[in-house]
Amino acid sequence: VQGEEAIIQGALARLSAGFPGALGLRDDAALIAVPPGHELVVTMDAVAAGVHFFESDAAADIAWKALAVNVSDVIAKGARPHAYLMSLAFPTAPDPAWLEQFAAGLAQAQSAFGLHLIGGDTDHRPGPLSVTITAMGLVPTGTMVKRGGAEPGDTIFVSGTLGDAALGLMLRADRPETKAWPLDEAGRRALVKRYLRPSPRVALAPALRAYARAAMDISDGLVKDLARMTALSGVGAEVATHRLPLSPAAAKLLEHDPGLIAQVAAGGDDYEVLAALSPDNVSAFQTAARDAGITVTSIGRIVGAAASGVLLIGPDDVPLKLARTGYDHF
Amino acid sequence: VQGEEAIIQGALARLSAGFPGALGLRDDAALIAVPPGHELVVTMDAVAAGVHFFESDAAADIAWKALAVNVSDVIAKGARPHAYLMSLAFPTAPDPAWLEQFAAGLAQAQSAFGLHLIGGDTDHRPGPLSVTITAMGLVPTGTMVKRGGAEPGDTIFVSGTLGDAALGLMLRADRPETKAWPLDEAGRRALVKRYLRPSPRVALAPALRAYARAAMDISDGLVKDLARMTALSGVGAEVATHRLPLSPAAAKLLEHDPGLIAQVAAGGDDYEVLAALSPDNVSAFQTAARDAGITVTSIGRIVGAAASGVLLIGPDDVPLKLARTGYDHF
Repeated sequence: VQGEEAIIQGALARLSAGFPGALGLRDDAALIAVPPGHELVVTMDAVAAGVHFFESDAAADIAWKALAVNVSDVIAKGARPHAYLMSLAFPTAPDPAWLEQFAAGLAQAQSAFGLHLIGGDTDHRPGPLSVTITAMGLVPTGTMVKRGGAEPGDTIFVSGTLGDAALGLMLRADRPETKAWPLDEAGRRALVKRYLRPSPRVALAPALRAYARAAMDISDGLVKDLARMTALSGVGAEVATHRLPLSPAAAKLLEHDPGLIAQVAAGGDDYEVLAALSPDNVSAFQTAARDAGITVTSIGRIVGAAASGVLLIGPDDVPLKLARTGYDHF
Repeated sequence: VQGEEAIIQGALARLSAGFPGALGLRDDAALIAVPPGHELVVTMDAVAAGVHFFESDAAADIAWKALAVNVSDVIAKGARPHAYLMSLAFPTAPDPAWLEQFAAGLAQAQSAFGLHLIGGDTDHRPGPLSVTITAMGLVPTGTMVKRGGAEPGDTIFVSGTLGDAALGLMLRADRPETKAWPLDEAGRRALVKRYLRPSPRVALAPALRAYARAAMDISDGLVKDLARMTALSGVGAEVATHRLPLSPAAAKLLEHDPGLIAQVAAGGDDYEVLAALSPDNVSAFQTAARDAGITVTSIGRIVGAAASGVLLIGPDDVPLKLARTGYDHF
């Protein structure tokens, strides 16, 4: 059994290397110097075993996901990831090998996303393993992209592909219907990986800052998160389901079972970017996204304030009703 | 049962009033503008039912403590509290009346400490109720008081009185030996209150910044936390137990049972400030503390690098050995 300081200094302190204000995780607080002309964008999200991941998931995957879901919020605001703090709650003292893999997953994620661990705490308590992270990013002053701010006529974009993580979760959970899915091993692995290792589109942040009127990440499902954006903006939205971007594996599954469109439109854990742009900016945004190596897809448009909520237009222009429109923790 | 957004908008959003960058808790992230010439001091600590508080504690006390333990770290670094994020994990959806009291406790603490809620998240998962907070403070650039930095010959100060919370915890837990304690109801209440509602010495921060060579808060017990300071500073320390500042109730208990010195020297939850000062600064520090209305007491001195660890000098100049030198979560 290791003490709290052994866990921090033995496994975690190396993750602060290169960030002087982290003080080697040996002080009670960290120090952040915000460069002149910049502001700090701050978000906080927890993941817990049995809720956001499986206890048996690889330690490196758990670590990656805990950081990724936070970085996803930071970059959707147009910010550059800078630093994070982490609070770990262990039901039993962690095995050193597990901890080593957990730190390795964080190291990979840090390096992919461009930020450092600068502080936090480690606790021993009953309940599921949980990882709570506060992530911070930098934006030039006044350029943070808000959630509200979409206007009628705006084009709605999403990054990447949708639904993969929700489908991957069904596979990871061994749901009976997945046995019949027409997927080879590579297809299954691709979907499960999207659930285990979300990839926030860090390189898209500058394009969002430059061109988006409103943006947020999709974590609880497109429909629910888009409804949050439209509610705050005082507008409505129309989305064409046939335009929702699909990975090859997801496309194959929707051919097999068109009902799986619910996973694409309302499944959680996408961690893609949702953005509303003035039509004037669409072309420049597309160019910037392509230059950043990130696929973005126009999926619909913002409609007048009179309209309320999110209208999903299905095949043959028929409005689509979903039984469940997204994830709520309560 | 309330949804996540109802909890946030119904009970918590009002706590962000007055901090524009909190965006009414309606966005995915908050925005912090650090004033020119300042840096941000950031810390993160969790409290959980059954570990740091009792599930049956009043909701307002739980809230106060969760924020106080974080503010304690911020002010021990010489910083002025500025903002915090909070992640709540509920085993069952919270009762609206409980939530109302919880928010009221946060409002009291915010107002006492001078900071605002700017973000966070709310989750539903098994395990104890837990409250994880990331608190931030501001310091003029370059003035954060570090944990290391104590030098031989420095005078060691603590704020307030020690041991009250550890004794209060014994009362709160109804430990059998407390039945015989010679305390009236007011004395008991005073000790329990120190456990339930720690009072970080916010007004002491400027004096620490101006005069302390090293500082930290005492959360896991004086001996353990002082050992952390001396280890990082590469020095030792000598502390005279008869100089440890006691509240009237604690003084009465130590007369009754001198063995309770262990609660004073090594009990947790004090949330007082521990500081090392050059003798040249002692008088100015004492004046500044008095002007701020905060009692500070010199309890010993930092000794040469050759000495290691913390030496407690008991009555009759006999070094004191404690069976347990502080709190560790593992």
